[in-house]
Amino acid sequence: MPLDASARGVYPIAPTPFHPDGTIDFASIDRLTDFYRGCGATGMTVLGVMGEAGKLDQAEGLAVATRYIRRAAGLPVIVGVSAPGFAAMAGLARASMEAGAAGVMIAPPNSLRTDDQIATYYRQAAEAVGADVPFVIQDYPLNFSVVMTPGVIRRIVQENASCVMLKHEDWPGLEKISALRAFQAEGSMRPISILCGNGGLFLDFECERGADGAMTGYAFPDMLVDVVRLSQAGERDAAHDLFDAHLPLLRYEQQPGVGLAVRKYLMARRGLIAADAQRRPAGSLSTAARAEIEYLLGRLARHDARAVVGTGR
Amino acid sequence: MPLDASARGVYPIAPTPFHPDGTIDFASIDRLTDFYRGCGATGMTVLGVMGEAGKLDQAEGLAVATRYIRRAAGLPVIVGVSAPGFAAMAGLARASMEAGAAGVMIAPPNSLRTDDQIATYYRQAAEAVGADVPFVIQDYPLNFSVVMTPGVIRRIVQENASCVMLKHEDWPGLEKISALRAFQAEGSMRPISILCGNGGLFLDFECERGADGAMTGYAFPDMLVDVVRLSQAGERDAAHDLFDAHLPLLRYEQQPGVGLAVRKYLMARRGLIAADAQRRPAGSLSTAARAEIEYLLGRLARHDARAVVGTGR
Amino acid sequence: MPLDASARGVYPIAPTPFHPDGTIDFASIDRLTDFYRGCGATGMTVLGVMGEAGKLDQAEGLAVATRYIRRAAGLPVIVGVSAPGFAAMAGLARASMEAGAAGVMIAPPNSLRTDDQIATYYRQAAEAVGADVPFVIQDYPLNFSVVMTPGVIRRIVQENASCVMLKHEDWPGLEKISALRAFQAEGSMRPISILCGNGGLFLDFECERGADGAMTGYAFPDMLVDVVRLSQAGERDAAHDLFDAHLPLLRYEQQPGVGLAVRKYLMARRGLIAADAQRRPAGSLSTAARAEIEYLLGRLARHDARAVVGTGR
Amino acid sequence: MPLDASARGVYPIAPTPFHPDGTIDFASIDRLTDFYRGCGATGMTVLGVMGEAGKLDQAEGLAVATRYIRRAAGLPVIVGVSAPGFAAMAGLARASMEAGAAGVMIAPPNSLRTDDQIATYYRQAAEAVGADVPFVIQDYPLNFSVVMTPGVIRRIVQENASCVMLKHEDWPGLEKISALRAFQAEGSMRPISILCGNGGLFLDFECERGADGAMTGYAFPDMLVDVVRLSQAGERDAAHDLFDAHLPLLRYEQQPGVGLAVRKYLMARRGLIAADAQRRPAGSLSTAARAEIEYLLGRLARHDARAVVGTGR
Repeated sequence: MPLDASARGVYPIAPTPFHPDGTIDFASIDRLTDFYRGCGATGMTVLGVMGEAGKLDQAEGLAVATRYIRRAAGLPVIVGVSAPGFAAMAGLARASMEAGAAGVMIAPPNSLRTDDQIATYYRQAAEAVGADVPFVIQDYPLNFSVVMTPGVIRRIVQENASCVMLKHEDWPGLEKISALRAFQAEGSMRPISILCGNGGLFLDFECERGADGAMTGYAFPDMLVDVVRLSQAGERDAAHDLFDAHLPLLRYEQQPGVGLAVRKYLMARRGLIAADAQRRPAGSLSTAARAEIEYLLGRLARHDARAVVGTGR
Repeated sequence: MPLDASARGVYPIAPTPFHPDGTIDFASIDRLTDFYRGCGATGMTVLGVMGEAGKLDQAEGLAVATRYIRRAAGLPVIVGVSAPGFAAMAGLARASMEAGAAGVMIAPPNSLRTDDQIATYYRQAAEAVGADVPFVIQDYPLNFSVVMTPGVIRRIVQENASCVMLKHEDWPGLEKISALRAFQAEGSMRPISILCGNGGLFLDFECERGADGAMTGYAFPDMLVDVVRLSQAGERDAAHDLFDAHLPLLRYEQQPGVGLAVRKYLMARRGLIAADAQRRPAGSLSTAARAEIEYLLGRLARHDARAVVGTGR
Repeated sequence: MPLDASARGVYPIAPTPFHPDGTIDFASIDRLTDFYRGCGATGMTVLGVMGEAGKLDQAEGLAVATRYIRRAAGLPVIVGVSAPGFAAMAGLARASMEAGAAGVMIAPPNSLRTDDQIATYYRQAAEAVGADVPFVIQDYPLNFSVVMTPGVIRRIVQENASCVMLKHEDWPGLEKISALRAFQAEGSMRPISILCGNGGLFLDFECERGADGAMTGYAFPDMLVDVVRLSQAGERDAAHDLFDAHLPLLRYEQQPGVGLAVRKYLMARRGLIAADAQRRPAGSLSTAARAEIEYLLGRLARHDARAVVGTGR
Repeated sequence: MPLDASARGVYPIAPTPFHPDGTIDFASIDRLTDFYRGCGATGMTVLGVMGEAGKLDQAEGLAVATRYIRRAAGLPVIVGVSAPGFAAMAGLARASMEAGAAGVMIAPPNSLRTDDQIATYYRQAAEAVGADVPFVIQDYPLNFSVVMTPGVIRRIVQENASCVMLKHEDWPGLEKISALRAFQAEGSMRPISILCGNGGLFLDFECERGADGAMTGYAFPDMLVDVVRLSQAGERDAAHDLFDAHLPLLRYEQQPGVGLAVRKYLMARRGLIAADAQRRPAGSLSTAARAEIEYLLGRLARHDARAVVGTGR
């Protein structure tokens, strides 16, 4: 079933698990997929930046996406297809959709500056992957150095019928969500799904501003699911209480450069993947950093039993 | 008394208070200085990025610095003297030192890339302000786009006797503190003071890694003072408990672009300054944002009485 | 007489001459101004990037501008007033206009990305310097990292009645000139003056595309005057012949980082200024580089007698 | 025969010829290869930035490289293998070497800032492609935003035995060549081959500073061959005379963004490739631009018969 603008909930950004020797750990893909499904995720996104997509070659990327899609068994899977050129992008998009993907995600190349350049790029990209392939805009200025105004996002949405979702990770970003929802309310932009990334650092308020949920890779996606659910149910204080309990650790995970190392370490500690191995180039954790994470886990465990993970390494 | 490498504690980054019409609010400078002194700050830093230094002309900048210095009455004041050229930098440094400043802070221009360029710049800057003027390196890659390795910082320290402090705000930055302290331990770098910025987002662990304290502008500098004190006293859990209670609000304040608006709003709510006015260009707060801050204040007040600030506007 | 959209010809970017000890060489300002006037320049621009404006403090900047304005005796002088903040910008603009400047030039801060940010900045800057002060947009992406589409330039022109000129130095830029002139032709933008910078590297074709002349600092402004005159007179081949004879040297001068050193060396060799001194930080010329310049001068002298400058140092 | 540090002469940067429908034009690859060989090129470089490598998918890239290698019949071919990750880089390097490539070229990712980051990247890349695969450093700050000092280049050379060549395209760059040759002379760096890019804009002096030749894609590689030969034969004036005759056109071709469009247009006009088609995103030539190129061609034809190309389109 293709992705559409009604998507809500939590689409975790799935990592690519590796064995310590750098080969892909397909068994961990299966285990992780089962966990996502079990904890209430409503979809998944694979081959994002934090999925180490750039470190896979073409065949490996497709193999990872395919494995996730098969195991997801109907849960919609979005495949990141960002590439330096449209040929590689279109090839991966086509193959992923044939393998059963629900849609694709496209990040802008960091050379884009003006509003026109951004809008033109998405028009060409949408054409390259195929007008029938639903796509997600990834709006992540801190990482891509491309700044999209609400007006430009509206322009992309209005110019491309296949654009159905925004992965929102501008920072600051709360006013952007409000602006986009106001566009919808006044009828100047058709409705889209907005799922929030940026490590989840503002998820508590993003939901309240009108986001449909989260698309990020924090090592406790089950917490993200609960926060989104509580927020959508109007249980504001409960949502913040849970979110705040996780914030010290979530903030620790959100550090540029080493964030993925923290995330994979936590996922391995939780037993969601077999090893915290990354392909090079990779940030790594010092002994001090590992001890800090364990300390944060211990503190979190007083509030959330899911953080009880046995003795650390 | 000139700044030296033994500086510790909290040097708040002082804002420049404005009246709503954009003129400088000198009375609020006095009030704020008294507050800093009263809450246990061990020094102050004025005319930093968050002090809107770039929006003041030369005479205004010196007037603000001078007012802070006089009211501080002996508490060491560091003056930010970063400027596009050495003439303006040297002029402000000289005048500030004559007015009683303890030292100056110098940020790198964003055109610097290589290790040699960075080291050369600081050598020339140190010479420009005068070899007898103690200076602080400001290491803030997210804002200045200049990346300094621990090795480059060591080189600056070793090449310039007047370099006495690092304002540490790399992100991630914990390993950098450990690396610099290891340089000192092995004798390859003379001791310097390290005070941490970056909104205080990692202050809890920065102290544990060997930082001497904080130099940041969070609207609750009294909390920063307590966290540094608790941490230095070995009361780890208590330090984290207090820090974690503030983290949701601190994170909200640390947003690029609108962070200063949040900070000034909070300071005005606390009665530390008369108005939250900024000079243009300035981020501003929507009604929704103000309500979010009030909500966070209310939640914080359950843990920290200092957040009880009466009814919001 | 205030600058208006009818400005044409050559406005050299004037350097700030220094004595070898770094103090300002006012006598060379006079000599250079007389030369500009004598060779047919129709105006001048001072305190630009290549005027080392950033290396002057506030009082020095105004002193340099004032000296140029007085000596120019009626020839319109544009003063670069770009500054980190509006207070310094407005102060210099006001003082310069009082001293007799014809208008001011404003470059965008390098943090601007989106179309809206750029347009907003110029609206606020125009207001800051005063609605009655004619201003020039400086469009130099290679140096400022700000990319303005023709549409954004039109927006600035239409939103600010005091915008009368574009200093065009986009690269590539020929199509931009054509696009702006097409806007005028179709009536969607009021006429502005377009003078071209970027070292003059494309001046031959820029005139043919509709530029009104040059605003750049090549050490042979007399050549620029002739090329613009020939081109405007329809003597295409003659214009290119002269331009091409200078191109090897002009290209050598246009190197980032050391270009100003080349320019000042050439001006000193021609006797236009007393010394080629720059304030730090500054690029400098190796013995090999000086020999290369002399070789190029010698080759040029076979085509243009103005390059006969006696024995080199 | 593997590439080594004795390489000299001209290695043209070969474009990837496309049919107007975007498919690869293999017949033009053959024609162009024969032309390179016939005009005195001593090698070739394929899949560079100007070879539109990023617009090809993995299989296409290898197909283009292989076709060039086969037709080159012994002339050394360097294959650009720059990629977002080491898996894709290593895969293409291995396959290219098996197909008969002489070596590979590696550009730095634009996220690198510090000296250590750059050196580490090349160490990991050299290991990824295999210690037995000769590689070329591509030093092109204007395009990649990575600034390498002479000291960092020396470090890469000394740390990686398989590093045999520098594609030098820093700007300005003449002093860098002198610095590297001085390192060799003093014995602190083993000899490497230096071939110059950056559109050839300084080739005249680069040869005199000690470069071994050119690696760039100007549409008249036969001119590059002559200039390098004349310069190496000590015929300085003749080398400059020829170079200067081409400089107006060469400069026109070197414009960022549209340069490749100019180059392919010229190559098609010369009959070296069948069409000037590029894959998207691509700069294109306006009618005015085409007329300007034709005008420059006509002027060049008075000095160099190779520019006589029949009536334009």
